[in-house]
Amino acid sequence: MKAAIFHGANKPLSFEDMDKPAPGPDDIVVKIAACGVCHTDLHYLDHGTPTYKQPPMILGHEPSGYISDAGANVKIFREGDKVLLPAVLTCGVCDFCRTGRENICNAMTMLGNHIDGAYAEYIKVPAKDICHLPDEIPLEEGSIIADAISTPFHAVKNRAEVKPGDTVVVFGCGGIGINCVQVAAAVGGTVIAVDIVDRKLELAQEFGATAVINPTKVEKLGKEIKKLTGGGADIAIEAIGRADTIQEAFGTLRKGGRLVVVGFAGENMSVNAGKIMFFEMEIVGSLGCRPVDYPKIIEMARLGKIKVKELVTNRYPLEKINDAFDLLRAHDENVIRSIVIP
Amino acid sequence: MKAAIFHGANKPLSFEDMDKPAPGPDDIVVKIAACGVCHTDLHYLDHGTPTYKQPPMILGHEPSGYISDAGANVKIFREGDKVLLPAVLTCGVCDFCRTGRENICNAMTMLGNHIDGAYAEYIKVPAKDICHLPDEIPLEEGSIIADAISTPFHAVKNRAEVKPGDTVVVFGCGGIGINCVQVAAAVGGTVIAVDIVDRKLELAQEFGATAVINPTKVEKLGKEIKKLTGGGADIAIEAIGRADTIQEAFGTLRKGGRLVVVGFAGENMSVNAGKIMFFEMEIVGSLGCRPVDYPKIIEMARLGKIKVKELVTNRYPLEKINDAFDLLRAHDENVIRSIVIP
Amino acid sequence: MKAAIFHGANKPLSFEDMDKPAPGPDDIVVKIAACGVCHTDLHYLDHGTPTYKQPPMILGHEPSGYISDAGANVKIFREGDKVLLPAVLTCGVCDFCRTGRENICNAMTMLGNHIDGAYAEYIKVPAKDICHLPDEIPLEEGSIIADAISTPFHAVKNRAEVKPGDTVVVFGCGGIGINCVQVAAAVGGTVIAVDIVDRKLELAQEFGATAVINPTKVEKLGKEIKKLTGGGADIAIEAIGRADTIQEAFGTLRKGGRLVVVGFAGENMSVNAGKIMFFEMEIVGSLGCRPVDYPKIIEMARLGKIKVKELVTNRYPLEKINDAFDLLRAHDENVIRSIVIP
Amino acid sequence: MKAAIFHGANKPLSFEDMDKPAPGPDDIVVKIAACGVCHTDLHYLDHGTPTYKQPPMILGHEPSGYISDAGANVKIFREGDKVLLPAVLTCGVCDFCRTGRENICNAMTMLGNHIDGAYAEYIKVPAKDICHLPDEIPLEEGSIIADAISTPFHAVKNRAEVKPGDTVVVFGCGGIGINCVQVAAAVGGTVIAVDIVDRKLELAQEFGATAVINPTKVEKLGKEIKKLTGGGADIAIEAIGRADTIQEAFGTLRKGGRLVVVGFAGENMSVNAGKIMFFEMEIVGSLGCRPVDYPKIIEMARLGKIKVKELVTNRYPLEKINDAFDLLRAHDENVIRSIVIP
Repeated sequence: MKAAIFHGANKPLSFEDMDKPAPGPDDIVVKIAACGVCHTDLHYLDHGTPTYKQPPMILGHEPSGYISDAGANVKIFREGDKVLLPAVLTCGVCDFCRTGRENICNAMTMLGNHIDGAYAEYIKVPAKDICHLPDEIPLEEGSIIADAISTPFHAVKNRAEVKPGDTVVVFGCGGIGINCVQVAAAVGGTVIAVDIVDRKLELAQEFGATAVINPTKVEKLGKEIKKLTGGGADIAIEAIGRADTIQEAFGTLRKGGRLVVVGFAGENMSVNAGKIMFFEMEIVGSLGCRPVDYPKIIEMARLGKIKVKELVTNRYPLEKINDAFDLLRAHDENVIRSIVIP
Repeated sequence: MKAAIFHGANKPLSFEDMDKPAPGPDDIVVKIAACGVCHTDLHYLDHGTPTYKQPPMILGHEPSGYISDAGANVKIFREGDKVLLPAVLTCGVCDFCRTGRENICNAMTMLGNHIDGAYAEYIKVPAKDICHLPDEIPLEEGSIIADAISTPFHAVKNRAEVKPGDTVVVFGCGGIGINCVQVAAAVGGTVIAVDIVDRKLELAQEFGATAVINPTKVEKLGKEIKKLTGGGADIAIEAIGRADTIQEAFGTLRKGGRLVVVGFAGENMSVNAGKIMFFEMEIVGSLGCRPVDYPKIIEMARLGKIKVKELVTNRYPLEKINDAFDLLRAHDENVIRSIVIP
Repeated sequence: MKAAIFHGANKPLSFEDMDKPAPGPDDIVVKIAACGVCHTDLHYLDHGTPTYKQPPMILGHEPSGYISDAGANVKIFREGDKVLLPAVLTCGVCDFCRTGRENICNAMTMLGNHIDGAYAEYIKVPAKDICHLPDEIPLEEGSIIADAISTPFHAVKNRAEVKPGDTVVVFGCGGIGINCVQVAAAVGGTVIAVDIVDRKLELAQEFGATAVINPTKVEKLGKEIKKLTGGGADIAIEAIGRADTIQEAFGTLRKGGRLVVVGFAGENMSVNAGKIMFFEMEIVGSLGCRPVDYPKIIEMARLGKIKVKELVTNRYPLEKINDAFDLLRAHDENVIRSIVIP
Repeated sequence: MKAAIFHGANKPLSFEDMDKPAPGPDDIVVKIAACGVCHTDLHYLDHGTPTYKQPPMILGHEPSGYISDAGANVKIFREGDKVLLPAVLTCGVCDFCRTGRENICNAMTMLGNHIDGAYAEYIKVPAKDICHLPDEIPLEEGSIIADAISTPFHAVKNRAEVKPGDTVVVFGCGGIGINCVQVAAAVGGTVIAVDIVDRKLELAQEFGATAVINPTKVEKLGKEIKKLTGGGADIAIEAIGRADTIQEAFGTLRKGGRLVVVGFAGENMSVNAGKIMFFEMEIVGSLGCRPVDYPKIIEMARLGKIKVKELVTNRYPLEKINDAFDLLRAHDENVIRSIVIP
């Protein structure tokens, strides 16, 4: 099969021939229909973050496709079934997997990181975490559910626990933020989107934001949000990954409000300890999404409550994947998500 | 002022002149804009259920209006403010009020039952539980939020605890059921509506049902729903108030599923105890709605996530209220909710 | 090895020689130290309930012991480690396992039912669900944690959700009920124990009940409990398994109270539907215990917060197991739990 | 009546004659039996923190006593009833009061701060939040439930949500910390107490700590706790009120663990944002206690599950209250709580 091989940081992926993988007894092999192109890959490509599997290896963790082969123990999939692969697979055995928190599994396996990913014609994965994709969802665009939508879904449902009528401020309207906006709106929240790029705020409105704010154009963001919400938001979600915006998000909350940190910032954040105590504030992290939530997301996408197709703004053949990365690097404000097609 | 007076069972309301009420220090007096006409009143009118306040008294518990007067201690309302009055007021002191369950307050006060209601030009109520109505919601139609929408909202949010992607079967698509459908859909549920009247199923689809079933037209309802849901619904809501349909609703659930009883049935229901134990089934009741949830409902209505205007199919001047009751008695399948305008 | 073989209903177990089992790659083989003798076995022995594995097979689902052999993939156990085996093993893959409800796993495996159990010198099981037993807990008596204590622990913690200061009525003070009493008391509940045998009520007091009632000696049980609790219990747990006592337990609850059905009754129960709705009552089932909760139980037993040794009133060598069943059949009021020692 | 009057910062309280208060229609007047002496008062006395009521006024917020007079609308209290007064009274009307969070009421009233307190012979308060004290709890010592025990109870039950078998690290074993230890142990937690004073660690063990650590005597506290807990505590409670110990407490948690900030620190705390996100850590504040929880605490104290009498190490007549404050200022390691008796 053809695959885009990662040979280490600061080198383009190289398009090569490889053996098609064969399934073990509990595995399936999927013929990739499409794979979303995610910023995470730039950490390996440009910033030297090591992958768990040593290069040469295959990146790519947002795939959809057709079942090609299934191992002897696999019963619920047949050749030709349309499927979605979660970005991160779980062990099913650790305390977190057993208590409904498999997204922080002690032995998680990320596609295109711990094992070979989906920038290829085929991928082999354990069958345990794979989901069927219904016909109502276009197979190629459906691929991006596997991270761009699932991470926001988990943040909104399981960590923010948005309830109908809650006010939710979302900081950052990139790939993750825009979907925090649409999921929070889809479950009954009133969403205020914050971004410094006006085009992204337009998109946020198309995806369900009730109000938008460009912080470079208001005097005091916190004040503005307290005015809009009658005293502060119920929930703030930071989807950028910067200490300063996390702190700013914290400042937009009402008494007893909850800050959800979805963006990764490797630095320290600083907040007033007395405010946390006296106003019973809450700060919680959010990582990825439980495979068990994927069918719920797929169901909402099937009914149009979550938009998928509209998120895919760009398409590349697999052999042009380095162009897709260049587009990511360009921070084009009209791009939401690209997919590559093998 | 003019008021429609209730003089006891089996007599029409009589349209009479009364003194306009004067507010105590913690009260407001509201000039009624409209009041929803609810089946509950037929219990007093036709079935001899006694009101807590002895007749002659004024019925009506779904009002909206303008602030006319406010008592000395009332600070957040001014003359002319548009307001919505909850159907049931609470004490703020009992254990239930203090633990977030004011809807089952030990000393609840229902408009048009414990105290004079809103089939009149004016009503006097304690200011504590009253909500502002924003301009985006038409004042007259907004009245029906106060029971027809609030009771379903509580059932869906606080008792069913519908999560995004859950499958929810709603039994009965009358005034309460149709709003269980629309609220469950508005928070991300996949709703299957059940009714024996096809016109009501059409309405259910307009209000967000994904699938509908007329049980008189299928062989086995339970089987049908298990097929649609892949093994049983996550949640079943009974909004009719009959032991047999409650039991039928229970039979549509998956293992670990939850039955919410919203309809009132004064009779015994019978379910297999071993099934409850072995499959960890859950059966919970749902009564009314907490006043603290009203602003959340109003916010969803303001944004169009919950439809209000579309629910009001019939309008009467107050002096024709007995005609409105006759319409209720006729069970016209095209009627969702009537309002009376003083 | 020696084992007590089950050859079908209405025959005593026969003490025979068998091959010691060999572990697969993910299995361990445990040298049994002791196994609790549970009423469940009488269903197979006396009432004709079939086991999932066809006889001849080995019963017994409450074992403790030492690691004898471990498969190649097993890393956390070494020969000689003291271990406790949960009565029911789980698949780790189904929706229930993934959402923190592995006790209602779609593919559960019960020792001494789906696979060979522990009335033998050795047992082979998958390593996934096995727990270490600390030295502070006597190894032989510790065996009974695996059902007699774990099922009550789950009922109290996860289904009743007893909070400190809650009043909890426990119906039935047999092997399961007495442990519902002690666990509910150990987490801060005020426990009222109900049984028709005075000796069992004495035991309930030794295990933490604050008050006890013999319903044959009071005029109206419900009234009595409402007096003791100031209006009704927060929680009622039925640990007998009869429709009439489940209904009686329901009648002892306060408004908004929760009934937990732990005892298995294969018959219908009948409760007033209007009461469920109007008072927002809750009825939930409780089955077994999640393996992930076992370490929590073991920790509480280690610290003496849950008593284990005191529950074991009778001990038999494995070859006398039929005598242990006869003791069960005799309903001796001084017996809490017997263990057999291979 | 006699009262100890606060005339402003840096002056001793002066023992003076005042008029006994008379109740309004919804009030009671309580003859004080005893009042706990709390560090909070030193903020007003020594550090210039202003009271909400202008001096001259009466401090003291941990009182018990007998009903002396009751207003016309007060029905559940009679002259002579033994009562406990919560330190902080609530409005019953705001969103927080209505959603089960009355401890962060928008219009809270603290005894001895917003209104006259209990360093006096009598106190007048609204009847709404007052609780009966049963005979099993000594009336004088029972006074200290009203802050020293209630604040930890709320922190453990409602904010830490300690579950049976959870490991809980408590930082600081002063008046609040020692009670976090005993309440966490009383609900089934395994408690590790941390303090730099060995005598306080001895006390912590008497009140239920399973392990104790003096951080001045170990090399790395975090490592020590991770060893004791097998990888990190489920919950850490900071009851000191310093940014550095809050940060240290955060460092003792397992993945997905929860930090509860009970101590007040007016400064910024700094934690790694990426750790919060990637390990789904949780940081929540805890303030005071809901009046609705007081009867639950009283019930646990009545049954001896929470010790009260043992916490009162020192007693003063009211006229010696300045000596009681001097004792507080001396940080004597054998003092847990003092009470003053009018």
